[in-house]
Amino acid sequence: MPPEDASNETIRHFVQTAHAVDLAAWLAELPQDLAQEQILALAQPRQAETFSYLSLDVQAALARRLGRRELAEIVTRMEADDRVDLFNHLKPEEQQRLLRDLAQEEREDIRRLSTYAEETAGAIMTSDYATLATSMSAHEAIEVLRREAPEKETIYRSYVLDADRRLIGSVRLVELILAGTDTLIAEIMDPDPMAVTLDTDQEEVARLIARYDLTALPVIDEHGRLVGIITRDDAEDVMQRETTEDFQKIATVIPFSQSIREAGKSVLYKKRIFWLALLVFGNLFSGAGIAFFEETILAYVALVFFLPLLIDSGGNAGSQAATLMVRALATGDAALKDWRDLILRELTIATALGATMALIVSPIGLLRGGSDIALVVSLTMMLVVIVGSLVGMSLPFLLSRLRLDPATASAPLITTISDVVGVLIYFSLATSILGP
Amino acid sequence: MPPEDASNETIRHFVQTAHAVDLAAWLAELPQDLAQEQILALAQPRQAETFSYLSLDVQAALARRLGRRELAEIVTRMEADDRVDLFNHLKPEEQQRLLRDLAQEEREDIRRLSTYAEETAGAIMTSDYATLATSMSAHEAIEVLRREAPEKETIYRSYVLDADRRLIGSVRLVELILAGTDTLIAEIMDPDPMAVTLDTDQEEVARLIARYDLTALPVIDEHGRLVGIITRDDAEDVMQRETTEDFQKIATVIPFSQSIREAGKSVLYKKRIFWLALLVFGNLFSGAGIAFFEETILAYVALVFFLPLLIDSGGNAGSQAATLMVRALATGDAALKDWRDLILRELTIATALGATMALIVSPIGLLRGGSDIALVVSLTMMLVVIVGSLVGMSLPFLLSRLRLDPATASAPLITTISDVVGVLIYFSLATSILGP
Repeated sequence: MPPEDASNETIRHFVQTAHAVDLAAWLAELPQDLAQEQILALAQPRQAETFSYLSLDVQAALARRLGRRELAEIVTRMEADDRVDLFNHLKPEEQQRLLRDLAQEEREDIRRLSTYAEETAGAIMTSDYATLATSMSAHEAIEVLRREAPEKETIYRSYVLDADRRLIGSVRLVELILAGTDTLIAEIMDPDPMAVTLDTDQEEVARLIARYDLTALPVIDEHGRLVGIITRDDAEDVMQRETTEDFQKIATVIPFSQSIREAGKSVLYKKRIFWLALLVFGNLFSGAGIAFFEETILAYVALVFFLPLLIDSGGNAGSQAATLMVRALATGDAALKDWRDLILRELTIATALGATMALIVSPIGLLRGGSDIALVVSLTMMLVVIVGSLVGMSLPFLLSRLRLDPATASAPLITTISDVVGVLIYFSLATSILGP
Repeated sequence: MPPEDASNETIRHFVQTAHAVDLAAWLAELPQDLAQEQILALAQPRQAETFSYLSLDVQAALARRLGRRELAEIVTRMEADDRVDLFNHLKPEEQQRLLRDLAQEEREDIRRLSTYAEETAGAIMTSDYATLATSMSAHEAIEVLRREAPEKETIYRSYVLDADRRLIGSVRLVELILAGTDTLIAEIMDPDPMAVTLDTDQEEVARLIARYDLTALPVIDEHGRLVGIITRDDAEDVMQRETTEDFQKIATVIPFSQSIREAGKSVLYKKRIFWLALLVFGNLFSGAGIAFFEETILAYVALVFFLPLLIDSGGNAGSQAATLMVRALATGDAALKDWRDLILRELTIATALGATMALIVSPIGLLRGGSDIALVVSLTMMLVVIVGSLVGMSLPFLLSRLRLDPATASAPLITTISDVVGVLIYFSLATSILGP
């Protein structure tokens, strides 16, 4: 990217030669009037491609600045799925205006693609795919692709349809090339191609594409007719977004889709305050536990010394278990059916962790408060680590079982639960061992 | 996958028709003697493909059970990069035995590919790529690909080399098909293909492939000679592994590569105890702070009620900021150079969060301890949320600056730091407002 004080010459060279991704990244940092000027100066089809790489917020902002014809031209040249994403991001009156400015074909395509529910296969598919018929020869098929290729998102895999547009096979470009020119498509196609339906969850789509290493995945309607394909790069974007959401959730941030640099301060405030405030009420239970044992605390004030250490350790062990589980469930490394095995195993690991932590903390207990306090602190440490770990390991499974997102088992939530349990264990043990 | 009590017929059907990925997943769950039997019964090349999809631990275990000739046959048919991964996972004496059993070509290929440092482009590249010369026509080029295709990992992009094997261009299969048959490769190739060197970090490779949506990325040596390519699916595996590592790190688990179901109990224990134990010493500072203010605590024991709430809130706000930053740095949403902007913005957001939290907690303070305690608690809440957030936002930048992994700024680490600061703020304010 050119530096801020680059000469006009340097900028011109960059604009002409840079990859559209890099060009878009640079435009996103410019003031909007300059970005608009640069976009309009680009040659087609570089213009539409660069525009597509901008974030939807920036695309929408620029769409509002561009002339109606300028916008319609860019939108017409965008890929079908990118076009719909922008359309869905505009206000209703802007959508209507844009539709009026487009040719019938694009208009109908947008109308169709924009009707599907968010986060489904229908919402992320594109209509730019190549189709063949069983009766074509490999040679004829290659001719078809040669004609249509520049407009299609991928021709590495083509789809074979019957007269009713039902999906009956797929062929890889490699196979067309390897086949003799007279070989019929019917002979070389895969007659049982993997496909998803319009309402398949986008995360499931992304997982299939990654698992089976697919170039694209066809989408069929309830009659088995091909209605779109999902390309690998779009599936990867979905996967990346879902992973970012998991990071946000395990840190008790309500998911947001903008990049952290583009998200406004008030957006970030709102996404963060909800759980922070909610957990206050969880912590009041810890406070109530402490209030209940005030006599014990006054009698043995040295106990307070160990309070942050004990409750944090339980929370930390729990966060470890929860985060490992959340990730394993997201990648498919573990499934709901594994819960019994994994929790039993966690019990062994947590006992070992708890015993080690008890050993570490016992000499400190001895030094600070004598043998009785050391006993209370060590026992509590052992128990909070075990309880924290088990809660951390179980909660993602439980949420998943209830069809909620396991990533809601965030580190702060586990910590708060462990705190309450930890306070109760600590002061109960103290009261019964040290006397009230 | 067939159920555990499936009939032989069902199993036979599954083994014959399932995708190699699914077959491998099923084999991994079988006892090793049965898995070995099933693997040996498979036809080539399905055998090698299925074997490649097993985890390296399972591959190595099976390799030890198979006969020398059986193993050599499978290994010969594996893709070059998978072959080397298995080789690197074997014990030295097993490596020597395997090398002796292979033909010269595979032996040399393994020797060459296994020499590169872990986590570099050299370590994840494959030698199965197609090459062309500038003087070939598009027609000749397609003939070359037709001959070589079945053995190459991808022919969607071929690489153009000069007489010294220096990389001077690349051509996409689509372009070969679109070009007239007599067009020379020199005319249609991209004369400036993106490439990385042998020592490029694998994460950088994965980021380039994702950013520029590449099918494969060539690797060149110090003389500009092509030595391998990295395919998209391998880059995605790298990305997925690195993301899993980030999850592990932000939960203070030392990264491990096995799936959570395959990792042994003692492995998990070792990966988790390190930070748990280390943070004990961090928490001793909180304890020391508390010990220092023991007089104040004895005079106002109601203060202990709010202790878990206050230190947790600072830790939670800090974990939010840290986790958002770690992810943004990993995806490239934010870079080191953005630190000043982002930290200034965080100051505003954290002040708003702190003020809200102070408002929420003040009536509780009033109820539990009167107006003075309410003042101390509210002020402390405000400050710990601000300090926690700023530490959480800055630490990933600082680590990144020091060329350490920003993901080391784990939630538990931030919580421990916030705790120490929180204890000191809380009791200092209490002592000065309530009197010692």
